[in-house]
Amino acid sequence: MTPPSSTSDDTTSGLLAQLTTDEKIALLSGAGYWRTVGYPERGIAAFTLNDGPHGVRAVSADDHLGASNAATAVCFPTASALSCSWDTSLARAHGSALAAAARLADVDVVLGPAMNIKRTPLGGRNFEYFSEDPCLTGRLAAAVVSGVESGGVGASLKHFAVNNQEYDRFTISAEVDERALREIYLRGFEIAVTEGRPATVMSAYNAVNGVPCSENHRLLTGILREEWGFDGLVVSDWGAVQDRVTALRAGLDLEMPASQGLGAAAIGAALKSGELSEEDVDRAAARVVELAARFAREDRPEPVTTSEAELADIARTIAQQSIVLLRNERGTLPLKRTTAVALIGEFAENPRFQGGGSSNVQVASFTTARKEISRFLPSDQVLHARGCEGEEIDEALLDEAVEVAAQADVALLFVGLTEMTESEGFDRETLSLPASHLALIDRVSAVTPRTVVVLHKGSAVDIASWHDKADAILDLNLGGQEVAAAALDVIFGDVNPSGRTSETVPLRLEDTPAHLDYPGGLRRAHYRESIWVGYRYYDRRKMPVAYPFGHGLSYTDFAYADPRAVVHDDESVTVEVAVRNVGERDGFEVVQVYVHDDVSSVARPERELRGFSKIWIAAGESVTARIELDRRDFAFWDEHRDRWTIESGAFTIEIGSSSRDIRARVGVDLAGDAPTAEIIDRHTPVRYFLGDPEFAAVIEQFVSSYPMFGGDFDSLPPLARRIVTETINGMPLEKLRLVSGGAFSEDAIASAIARLTSLR
Amino acid sequence: MTPPSSTSDDTTSGLLAQLTTDEKIALLSGAGYWRTVGYPERGIAAFTLNDGPHGVRAVSADDHLGASNAATAVCFPTASALSCSWDTSLARAHGSALAAAARLADVDVVLGPAMNIKRTPLGGRNFEYFSEDPCLTGRLAAAVVSGVESGGVGASLKHFAVNNQEYDRFTISAEVDERALREIYLRGFEIAVTEGRPATVMSAYNAVNGVPCSENHRLLTGILREEWGFDGLVVSDWGAVQDRVTALRAGLDLEMPASQGLGAAAIGAALKSGELSEEDVDRAAARVVELAARFAREDRPEPVTTSEAELADIARTIAQQSIVLLRNERGTLPLKRTTAVALIGEFAENPRFQGGGSSNVQVASFTTARKEISRFLPSDQVLHARGCEGEEIDEALLDEAVEVAAQADVALLFVGLTEMTESEGFDRETLSLPASHLALIDRVSAVTPRTVVVLHKGSAVDIASWHDKADAILDLNLGGQEVAAAALDVIFGDVNPSGRTSETVPLRLEDTPAHLDYPGGLRRAHYRESIWVGYRYYDRRKMPVAYPFGHGLSYTDFAYADPRAVVHDDESVTVEVAVRNVGERDGFEVVQVYVHDDVSSVARPERELRGFSKIWIAAGESVTARIELDRRDFAFWDEHRDRWTIESGAFTIEIGSSSRDIRARVGVDLAGDAPTAEIIDRHTPVRYFLGDPEFAAVIEQFVSSYPMFGGDFDSLPPLARRIVTETINGMPLEKLRLVSGGAFSEDAIASAIARLTSLR
Repeated sequence: MTPPSSTSDDTTSGLLAQLTTDEKIALLSGAGYWRTVGYPERGIAAFTLNDGPHGVRAVSADDHLGASNAATAVCFPTASALSCSWDTSLARAHGSALAAAARLADVDVVLGPAMNIKRTPLGGRNFEYFSEDPCLTGRLAAAVVSGVESGGVGASLKHFAVNNQEYDRFTISAEVDERALREIYLRGFEIAVTEGRPATVMSAYNAVNGVPCSENHRLLTGILREEWGFDGLVVSDWGAVQDRVTALRAGLDLEMPASQGLGAAAIGAALKSGELSEEDVDRAAARVVELAARFAREDRPEPVTTSEAELADIARTIAQQSIVLLRNERGTLPLKRTTAVALIGEFAENPRFQGGGSSNVQVASFTTARKEISRFLPSDQVLHARGCEGEEIDEALLDEAVEVAAQADVALLFVGLTEMTESEGFDRETLSLPASHLALIDRVSAVTPRTVVVLHKGSAVDIASWHDKADAILDLNLGGQEVAAAALDVIFGDVNPSGRTSETVPLRLEDTPAHLDYPGGLRRAHYRESIWVGYRYYDRRKMPVAYPFGHGLSYTDFAYADPRAVVHDDESVTVEVAVRNVGERDGFEVVQVYVHDDVSSVARPERELRGFSKIWIAAGESVTARIELDRRDFAFWDEHRDRWTIESGAFTIEIGSSSRDIRARVGVDLAGDAPTAEIIDRHTPVRYFLGDPEFAAVIEQFVSSYPMFGGDFDSLPPLARRIVTETINGMPLEKLRLVSGGAFSEDAIASAIARLTSLR
Repeated sequence: MTPPSSTSDDTTSGLLAQLTTDEKIALLSGAGYWRTVGYPERGIAAFTLNDGPHGVRAVSADDHLGASNAATAVCFPTASALSCSWDTSLARAHGSALAAAARLADVDVVLGPAMNIKRTPLGGRNFEYFSEDPCLTGRLAAAVVSGVESGGVGASLKHFAVNNQEYDRFTISAEVDERALREIYLRGFEIAVTEGRPATVMSAYNAVNGVPCSENHRLLTGILREEWGFDGLVVSDWGAVQDRVTALRAGLDLEMPASQGLGAAAIGAALKSGELSEEDVDRAAARVVELAARFAREDRPEPVTTSEAELADIARTIAQQSIVLLRNERGTLPLKRTTAVALIGEFAENPRFQGGGSSNVQVASFTTARKEISRFLPSDQVLHARGCEGEEIDEALLDEAVEVAAQADVALLFVGLTEMTESEGFDRETLSLPASHLALIDRVSAVTPRTVVVLHKGSAVDIASWHDKADAILDLNLGGQEVAAAALDVIFGDVNPSGRTSETVPLRLEDTPAHLDYPGGLRRAHYRESIWVGYRYYDRRKMPVAYPFGHGLSYTDFAYADPRAVVHDDESVTVEVAVRNVGERDGFEVVQVYVHDDVSSVARPERELRGFSKIWIAAGESVTARIELDRRDFAFWDEHRDRWTIESGAFTIEIGSSSRDIRARVGVDLAGDAPTAEIIDRHTPVRYFLGDPEFAAVIEQFVSSYPMFGGDFDSLPPLARRIVTETINGMPLEKLRLVSGGAFSEDAIASAIARLTSLR
């Protein structure tokens, strides 16, 4: 199952054998901020790791917060945008391009993709993350990994795990139940590790259920390696290691950055005391050596390009496919080239296309709407006003914007979150756009025939409060340095929009699942919403939202027909549906496949995304989309059995254009692996035994002669009959025996249990 | 603090000394369904316990589910109605009357009040419970206890604890965090135990956090006796004991009912094996003996009456004060005596006034609207139609109701939940009224000038879906045998309504706090909504509701003025407000006092009920309401300190006519008992130390010279400054030391901690 690493174990052993214990220990901490220790003269190269997920930072200073200047590189769309492409091929291309950029900067391992779940829109680092959904997250991350590593560069999945907030991130423990951990917070990593096979995984700063991730043996070894078969290197988030010895034992191989010799000293002392063994050191050192051998070498595959201009083109393509057209009333978009346009907002000149912190890329250039619009309109059809400066309302700038807007056919409002309100390092305080941007939408929309709001932000923002003022809403997320060019391509129709939201846009902050407990208090954040994250929550509570998960408009329309699902030996399911482009323009459709369990012993989400396919369909043509599901796609994490289980029976496969625009449904039956018999004992209520006809007959007999009523059950009034029946159904077997007055002997109970537990 | 019991310990010891071990053991299980073992010849009486909270069932058969016939008794309003009185004096009168009824039936201990929290409207037994709020629950339960015991009868608080659903109630474990346990589920019991001093507490069927309540040492001994000072008897719910030995050790004194000798045999064997000691048996036996001596004696205080007719009058008074006028548009109520009225619905002839199960009282008589209306209108002004039969729509009956309604000025629709849809033993399946009742509201309201809906139900029902069709809505809850008379007293204005909702009426079932997890699965129900129960949840999420907690209209109006709050030595607070009856009619106002913590280190509810006062105010008069709060009313359960704590600072006292109709606010400052210093250590983030000016200065110095930026902090752009500052504020001290490059030595950290922890 595990492919051989590029360096065979024998070679690794041979390389390690040359080293003293101290030399091996030295391999387990960085040599500086971004580089590992190496012994090149003995065939063990040092390698360079560097931020980050959407471009190479290649800083020279010891700065992992993006605060200082760095060498320039291409800034690709952040995951907040890439995820809206719903396109694994594109994600792979993004990875390949990232690898090419890394090669240009002599970086061997890029610290990404980042793939934590967007638990709350307020998470400061959400812009680096993909989605509220683990399937979309995992599939895209796997594709990015595959792209990066095909370019001869290592990828590092981060932050493992449950790193969903910036507030107190170095100390907070995410208190999360096992089902939510497995189904929501780990599931994306599981997909990315097993499908993407990354070279490294980065441990998170925070703790999970009280154990710091960097010292979490269950996460780093039990689940990651033993369950998922990960065979790469675990590296710490920068500065995340506190107890180096416990971390090493837990499975954390490489501590980054250098720790002034403290890590090595602690390991050395623990070796002496016997707390660590030579094998502990060898195991971790071998992983460092293997990684160096795989990526810090000359004969790596050629990158897709060595041209920064070509990389910028790729960034633009990704941005084009990631832009989400949320709303488009009265055919407002695409704009005609005869339109007089007012470009309004600071972002028209200086677009926000990435976020602050470690992922921040120093770009050599970026596109702006102000310049790009000249590709579509002569200058006399374009007006411009800044509208504001930062977050505060400037009445003079506002007045000017209104004046300009009043002269145009359409106002394009370039608004969103400012860099001061959304960054790594701190969480957002509100769902709202800055007051200055809200004022622009309000005032400008009042005087212009058509208002188009173009959003720049890394996670969900309030839309509901101004929604009706916008004729069209285009969501760019944080789309990388070429996003302005891509946006105008979409606005003027050169590109047919095909992005889909990767997180629900709620109506209000108070509606969000984690609102009761976020951000937690000292030491602990309680994830009490459990598995009810994102659309799983809104659907469970049947809540209205501003825009549902998976939503996005196109300039054409699609019709779905002939849904089919074929079950293969209860092991996998092939879902097919014919999608016809019934509009006038060629375009992409994102076919989304959700699974619903018709009957379940536990509360399960109304629907869960299990597969998707982005397909290009020419106008008038029909294409059959095909999505493969496997058994796991029907399973839930079973807290009683402590494993994934599937309950036998009917499932509904929902095929939709969004999570709330289901176009076709098809039922399948699957054989389960979770017999009730497996979890019953004498403390189980009677109702769980009623599947056994023989037992059910005895129960019925018992009920009808329950001593309380002198055997006159049938003559009782209906309510009394129901109370007695429900009471007995709820009784544990043991209690039933006690009250049965001999109807159930100890032997009868024991044999019923034996009979039932043999049914598995 | 603990008053002496009526039998001194010496006497109890003397009585016990006469008994053999087996005789003492025999005292610890029932002698039958309702009676204990006694040795009357040796001065130890047997005593009788009997259901229930709103009337005496006095059954002869071994039936604790209310399924068989019983002797007749007066049925008082259930707790669902009594709680809406918001009147502790009335609750005490209810208790006294219950005691009188018990004396008539030779019952020594009544099994009530029942006082679990209404966690979800679906709870089948909600009608027996008071409220979603522990303050209202606890105060009323304490008053009932006081009334019952003043009448020479023992009260039994039940079901201890966290027994909030019928589904799988014998086996389910309520998985509830400590804060919710303390603040919500135990708090009412704590108030009732410490203020009401009941003779007995009944252990619940269910488990709490995995430990069955009957075997739960922490609940039955650690919290109930050691923390709260309870000195009475703990009795099991009927049939709740599974492991008699563990139960006895946990603090469960009396197992009920008789267990065919199994309990005694198990105790005897455990004594032999040394698993139990003689002291374990003596301690429990002493409590049985003490209870018998206190209540099973001749010289008890006289009951308030020995007349069933007088008890029925009391039942009617309670019902009058408990009816809630939810809505009254266009002055629909009170009705004039010139009105032509259509009485519609089965409940007009056969009102639902109690619920099914163990609390069910066999009444000798009950009032009906059909008969009572003759007190107000001549027969030619009254029409009647049944409208339906049970839950299903009967078109003929419906047509008849419409025809009748069309001839009247006002239709009085007597609707609600039927006995088959709400009972002990099973939970409700929906928030909705039966289809037949909904059809009546729909069809009748369309043809009648005024529609008055009169509700009969034990917990919240959907109102929103038909709300606008009703000109007035009168909520009777389950109001006891005299409720129809009381309802007509209110409808025709002989009584000015003064009830207030004791639970929020939500808009939809999906809005309810427990909706995500209720009713749980096999073995476990996760109380993941934590403390966010009832209005605490709706307020936290700023959700609209059909009717808020504490709501109820009057035929007069009240104006609030001059709110004052005086803090006494940081120990208690006297709240006063002047309330003027500014309408034309005398009436009761319910002044509600909520507390809001202005700044807190943990998420606290927007407001929490901490006191209330129901006051009679003549038209045109003003009365000053006075409510006393104590320190605990400002505290929260602190999961870090594992105790109640108060954080120093400002609180807002909100004085309202409902939880969403706050009429006055007044601020107070209280000294806390929760210094941050108490919970910090070297793993605490820097932000928690910034209250120490000296430490804050060092931090500031450090930030401005953080090595990452070569000491050039001030020249950084604003975002970078914020990231660095937030990052450092979030760092644990230990980590700060590691990265500080010497700015923080081990000594500096140690001395900062020492300095801060000395601040407590």
